[in-house]
Amino acid sequence: MNANSMGRLFTFTTWGESHGPAIGCVVDGCPPRMALSEEDIQPWLDRRRPGRNDQVSPRNEADAVKILSGVFEGRTTGHPIALIMENTNQRSTDYQAMRDVFRPGHADATHHVKYGHRDPRGGGRSSARETAARVAAGAVALRVLAHFPETREARIRGGLIALGGVRADVAEWDDGAIDGNPFFCPDAGAVDAMRAEVARAREAGDSLGGIVEVRVTGVPAGLGEPMYDKLDGRIGAAFLGLNAVKGVEIGAGFGAAGMRGSENNDAMRRPESGALGDAFLTNHAGGILGGITTGADIVARCAFKPTPSIALEQRTVDRDFGAFALCRYWKR
Amino acid sequence: MNANSMGRLFTFTTWGESHGPAIGCVVDGCPPRMALSEEDIQPWLDRRRPGRNDQVSPRNEADAVKILSGVFEGRTTGHPIALIMENTNQRSTDYQAMRDVFRPGHADATHHVKYGHRDPRGGGRSSARETAARVAAGAVALRVLAHFPETREARIRGGLIALGGVRADVAEWDDGAIDGNPFFCPDAGAVDAMRAEVARAREAGDSLGGIVEVRVTGVPAGLGEPMYDKLDGRIGAAFLGLNAVKGVEIGAGFGAAGMRGSENNDAMRRPESGALGDAFLTNHAGGILGGITTGADIVARCAFKPTPSIALEQRTVDRDFGAFALCRYWKR
Amino acid sequence: MNANSMGRLFTFTTWGESHGPAIGCVVDGCPPRMALSEEDIQPWLDRRRPGRNDQVSPRNEADAVKILSGVFEGRTTGHPIALIMENTNQRSTDYQAMRDVFRPGHADATHHVKYGHRDPRGGGRSSARETAARVAAGAVALRVLAHFPETREARIRGGLIALGGVRADVAEWDDGAIDGNPFFCPDAGAVDAMRAEVARAREAGDSLGGIVEVRVTGVPAGLGEPMYDKLDGRIGAAFLGLNAVKGVEIGAGFGAAGMRGSENNDAMRRPESGALGDAFLTNHAGGILGGITTGADIVARCAFKPTPSIALEQRTVDRDFGAFALCRYWKR
Amino acid sequence: MNANSMGRLFTFTTWGESHGPAIGCVVDGCPPRMALSEEDIQPWLDRRRPGRNDQVSPRNEADAVKILSGVFEGRTTGHPIALIMENTNQRSTDYQAMRDVFRPGHADATHHVKYGHRDPRGGGRSSARETAARVAAGAVALRVLAHFPETREARIRGGLIALGGVRADVAEWDDGAIDGNPFFCPDAGAVDAMRAEVARAREAGDSLGGIVEVRVTGVPAGLGEPMYDKLDGRIGAAFLGLNAVKGVEIGAGFGAAGMRGSENNDAMRRPESGALGDAFLTNHAGGILGGITTGADIVARCAFKPTPSIALEQRTVDRDFGAFALCRYWKR
Repeated sequence: MNANSMGRLFTFTTWGESHGPAIGCVVDGCPPRMALSEEDIQPWLDRRRPGRNDQVSPRNEADAVKILSGVFEGRTTGHPIALIMENTNQRSTDYQAMRDVFRPGHADATHHVKYGHRDPRGGGRSSARETAARVAAGAVALRVLAHFPETREARIRGGLIALGGVRADVAEWDDGAIDGNPFFCPDAGAVDAMRAEVARAREAGDSLGGIVEVRVTGVPAGLGEPMYDKLDGRIGAAFLGLNAVKGVEIGAGFGAAGMRGSENNDAMRRPESGALGDAFLTNHAGGILGGITTGADIVARCAFKPTPSIALEQRTVDRDFGAFALCRYWKR
Repeated sequence: MNANSMGRLFTFTTWGESHGPAIGCVVDGCPPRMALSEEDIQPWLDRRRPGRNDQVSPRNEADAVKILSGVFEGRTTGHPIALIMENTNQRSTDYQAMRDVFRPGHADATHHVKYGHRDPRGGGRSSARETAARVAAGAVALRVLAHFPETREARIRGGLIALGGVRADVAEWDDGAIDGNPFFCPDAGAVDAMRAEVARAREAGDSLGGIVEVRVTGVPAGLGEPMYDKLDGRIGAAFLGLNAVKGVEIGAGFGAAGMRGSENNDAMRRPESGALGDAFLTNHAGGILGGITTGADIVARCAFKPTPSIALEQRTVDRDFGAFALCRYWKR
Repeated sequence: MNANSMGRLFTFTTWGESHGPAIGCVVDGCPPRMALSEEDIQPWLDRRRPGRNDQVSPRNEADAVKILSGVFEGRTTGHPIALIMENTNQRSTDYQAMRDVFRPGHADATHHVKYGHRDPRGGGRSSARETAARVAAGAVALRVLAHFPETREARIRGGLIALGGVRADVAEWDDGAIDGNPFFCPDAGAVDAMRAEVARAREAGDSLGGIVEVRVTGVPAGLGEPMYDKLDGRIGAAFLGLNAVKGVEIGAGFGAAGMRGSENNDAMRRPESGALGDAFLTNHAGGILGGITTGADIVARCAFKPTPSIALEQRTVDRDFGAFALCRYWKR
Repeated sequence: MNANSMGRLFTFTTWGESHGPAIGCVVDGCPPRMALSEEDIQPWLDRRRPGRNDQVSPRNEADAVKILSGVFEGRTTGHPIALIMENTNQRSTDYQAMRDVFRPGHADATHHVKYGHRDPRGGGRSSARETAARVAAGAVALRVLAHFPETREARIRGGLIALGGVRADVAEWDDGAIDGNPFFCPDAGAVDAMRAEVARAREAGDSLGGIVEVRVTGVPAGLGEPMYDKLDGRIGAAFLGLNAVKGVEIGAGFGAAGMRGSENNDAMRRPESGALGDAFLTNHAGGILGGITTGADIVARCAFKPTPSIALEQRTVDRDFGAFALCRYWKR
């Protein structure tokens, strides 16, 4: 399996550059006879889309997904599902200026060393646009979870819990708040501060990092593998497979390193429901022990560095390693 | 590939339980004609061994490694290398008391749910003893790095930079200090405080977590893959594949989330050496951009939760989910 | 990796049904900076196309291939190459009659058992049309061979050496003859007999099997792996992965079973070229010893059963296992 | 996964050379709580052992297997099962004479090219002795089949149906006959001719090839995958992964290429049992259609070339490609 594929039984392979004719993915390993249509996928792409609000980059991407295979009369066949999204805006002139320099914080230089070239069109393959293909595959994965009785109750949601210097209060996590603000922040009380933080950064021609927390409820106990294929290892690799992610935590995460055993251990009591997941008095483990789910909520976080594309001038070099001062990505 | 194997071209598969007759691994993908003997591996096992000093658990493990295949007249053949370490202490009576309860913070309960049983002998497969097999495989991997001109200069070392409430000063990192103290701490100035911290925890019948930092110098630029097989993803999965690890960071890690782009971006200048790795003025990226090495030092950290085996009483349940108060693992 | 992918370093994943909107594949693992365009692929698709001559099924498939990713300004980027071929004829009414019966010799029944349904549109995923995606991926693979100096001289060609009761004389193998007849037969002297054999079978409303031989010259010695990943094993799996293939041979194949060692062993002499491949006095090994290439020609054969779609009536059952007499696929 | 591993969910990795201290394998993916002991494995190793009768090479191999992990109190744990067989005869002096020449028909030359060396001790890794590890893994696989209700009835047996110029009559296949003769021939009527054939070849200082047929009854319909992971493809790769195999057939095999569709298609009738496997009037498909089991018997064959080690003189070259006449492997 190459670098553009993920998964073992349920797998997907993505392809496409930000400024080529289209991007897409092939999803394999779906059960047959599962209801699936573009309507199951499109809402997630719409939700992902930049330009959906005034807080993020305004480039418009229509992202209309089409299913080209693997579905017959509204049901999956068990064969690979090809998904395609045409790129409506393929102009790459705006990126020409960057063609010959290595943008600090970008993968330009490492791609240049590895591949002997790089696609200057908006980052090419390493553009964030590639995540649209992941989102499409993820939407199919959600349908698979819903298809099996054992995982039907699983519910996954993610929220932005830190943006620059602003931290949300995770104790105030409210699922309902997430879609009510442009930051997908689960703590409505932090939204105004986030808005101000973005305004300040934008005013300064600068960018912000952030932390995303993902919570999964309704996961059966006993999923995952031990040793080299632990569920936390898979989550970690998936998060670190996203551009700009520099850190991953499960449950108490780095905080656990500062606790004592008596504090960090999740004590157990007899669960009235009889389910292991309900036995724990706390959830420092983040729902995973020994790589295997406990049935308690899976809690994971990842840290995104600030986007490297800023308006401030930065020192860099060109492809021949001559000194060079890189001008602004965008105008303040 | 199952959960007990790691790697794609260079692979290893580990086997064995802490109280079975032996543990071992099969290492595959080594180049042929590479010098290799037990002497290349044994020192790393000796260094790993618990009971090597008075600061950690006193169980004695001889860990004498034997090469059973893949080496002929002192050189690798290119075929699989079987390594075996006999378990000299297979008594498991001391663990009988724990047989019927789920130890808080351990994987007992999740293993019970997944496998319908668990090996009560010191954690069986999920014992930390399994890491001896990883260490042996890692010692072979070091020989492979030394075998190829491109990676001959690579040097990997790790140090404990936080233990309980004590943090080392990473600015004081001194490779030479690491083996000079029982904590493998690179900051000699922090060792006394660590010793005191351990004494306090032990006095309290409790345990401590910690943070390990790994630094790799001399890595060529251009190694690794983009997308779903990023080098950071592999490092993250490897770290999270260790028991008790709850968090992973690359470079600035979670700290990057609080920086602005202008601060976090590693500016570049013309490198006198001509090597990309020398072009960066800072190394917030931790040596990896877009999943591919920059040639600067790889810097990664992982957070270990405190060992769950403590002398303090904890609430837990037995296998039938009846309420139960678990007594001490060890006596103060 | 799922059932629709092949390869380890160079991989491809195919998707699409014979009567869906399109078929295609994603090719990954190509070196960067390799010249590639649709013109490298299209001729192979044209060559494969049914209806290209009067000897095979007349369904017209335009098979115009488009590259959607992985190529920038005429060169590969090192990222996945998505290829798509639209299906110009998606009508499936002609297959409606077969919807409810299991066609003898087809995979209808096994697909029904495995997937709980089957796509009646011309075999759906298991249609021979899927091989167009393999051909496209193969055309890219040929470019990869041509890209590297070590494999630049490799030349692969296949020919039909048996059709029904007619056997070509392989001693008369002439590469130039292959494209000069509708059967891709390398022995021009057998073509008339093959034509007559087809006429007889068609007259009878029946179908014919055949044997294809593939020869590869210019392969370096030392390629392949031993044990469970032998090159012959990969060739065998690839051939048996084609619909209707029921047998595979390497070199002397089944004939070797009847030889004595003194006869089958390929004796060696000092090669004037200094190349191992030139040392062998015979090539019963078919260019592979111990799973690894000798440098002599790779010679492999596969046996195709007759296409099961015939005009003669056959006994079969419907999906409810009621008795049923299946009428003709096509009219004499 | 490297060349020494096989399988996807149930996997095994073998290691060891014919004249090293031991050989063995690691079996992973077994279900937990399955009864397993050395007694389940040893009989298969005894059955495999050369020297078990007077018809084959007299080298004695004790092959006593030991389970080192993955089994606790007589039941599998779900963790990797390490199996080890010590080599009781590690002397390799008898092979010294061959050290510097490439033995015709052996993999000496290709191993030399690929690895830059070869182990002269009886073929090293490519010795037939490695199959002992496969047999051990296979014995565990049989226990897994017996563990699941769906596959409990599956019965696999293989027989030698051709030896040199002698062909058994497969219509006379009798399971009971197989263990009653030193050739594992299922047709008792062919045994005398085989014995005479061996005597003649031995007298001539020569060796014989043969064909093995494997039959599996009691397989459920619907197992296997389509496309690039067809069950026939896996069988073919497994067979071709054995030393000396040069051909593979499923069902009618190469014979199908000479049949007409009306003859080769397996007609169907209403099965009284209601099972698909009982619906077929013939079994030219060999129990597999479209890569998936029909429920009829799986029938597969493989052709072994004659062992290259003969007493007759053969022309060959040494490692420096100087001309050389190789003397006898053994004395008449």
